[in-house]
Amino acid sequence: MVRLIATLGTSPGGVFESFLNLSTGKYECEECDHRPIKVDEVYIVRTIDPQVELAWKIVKVLFICCSKIEVNLYDIPLKISDITSPRDYKEFKDNLNKFINQGDYVDFTGGRKSMSVAAALVAREKRAHVITTIIPQDEYNRISESIKKMNRAELSEYANRLDHRSKCDARFNEIICSLTSKSATTILLQ
Amino acid sequence: MVRLIATLGTSPGGVFESFLNLSTGKYECEECDHRPIKVDEVYIVRTIDPQVELAWKIVKVLFICCSKIEVNLYDIPLKISDITSPRDYKEFKDNLNKFINQGDYVDFTGGRKSMSVAAALVAREKRAHVITTIIPQDEYNRISESIKKMNRAELSEYANRLDHRSKCDARFNEIICSLTSKSATTILLQ
Repeated sequence: MVRLIATLGTSPGGVFESFLNLSTGKYECEECDHRPIKVDEVYIVRTIDPQVELAWKIVKVLFICCSKIEVNLYDIPLKISDITSPRDYKEFKDNLNKFINQGDYVDFTGGRKSMSVAAALVAREKRAHVITTIIPQDEYNRISESIKKMNRAELSEYANRLDHRSKCDARFNEIICSLTSKSATTILLQ
Repeated sequence: MVRLIATLGTSPGGVFESFLNLSTGKYECEECDHRPIKVDEVYIVRTIDPQVELAWKIVKVLFICCSKIEVNLYDIPLKISDITSPRDYKEFKDNLNKFINQGDYVDFTGGRKSMSVAAALVAREKRAHVITTIIPQDEYNRISESIKKMNRAELSEYANRLDHRSKCDARFNEIICSLTSKSATTILLQ
């Protein structure tokens, strides 16, 4: 079973593109065969900051409504709102340590730099793969601006009641499915 | 001899605050004595992107004109303009590998996340310390806005001719020395 474990910050960008690029073999790596990687489970590790909660809801809609590739998606909210001390960092890293196993794909694109560092260090210890997705700056700005204009309460309510059995709303699809970048590059680092 | 090795991106923020906070013992850590750390040498590892060049020049003025603590400052420009492929990442990491030794302090605050990850992984391998400085978002925004308003050509020319023996210009000091945050928190992670 292949698992993708991603850190998430205030921006939803990265993990969905990483998932699509891994699934279709469109990733860059040195000395690899670019074979498509069938991801079975996606874990989103995040803080409980309200902005990050919103990013999680967008990620949820992206995975359920904006891709035809089936995958089990899990939300892992940690009981911290940010990493501002060595204790927060340790808690974040200890939690990642419980989730990450050998052979997993660990995506450090989202969240604070200290989260990315924690994720990469644990991945190295556990002999997991490390990946990141680079979204061109203009695309990143376009996506950030679109998110600012969204009705957060409405989106939040929609995302809360959405699951794999429910039908996606065409109006939301139009907005949310545009919050991704087709020119994002995923690189596999180890 | 104590060395501080820092990655740098388009924003100058972080390394100067890390240096001051280490030097004065104002850093957070678990199970440590918060003793002031006398840093002898600071290495700035960066790409040759023009925005990053400008950030380097600001860092240079900060160290020479905005602190009374003497230190030797070294610029390490790598021959890449960004990390957008596994090859760029490898080149960046290989270069860090040459500079980082056991006991060094490695600051991953500046630059792309993949640079931070490369720095932290090399630090772990070499048994170096890892630190980062968190600048409050409002302070970060204030500093970014001030930089946007600066006369880049004039600053660049000033920074080029500045060295430890030259006198700092009071007019530049007023602008540049405000580009730091007094409420930045430095955390020592390992």
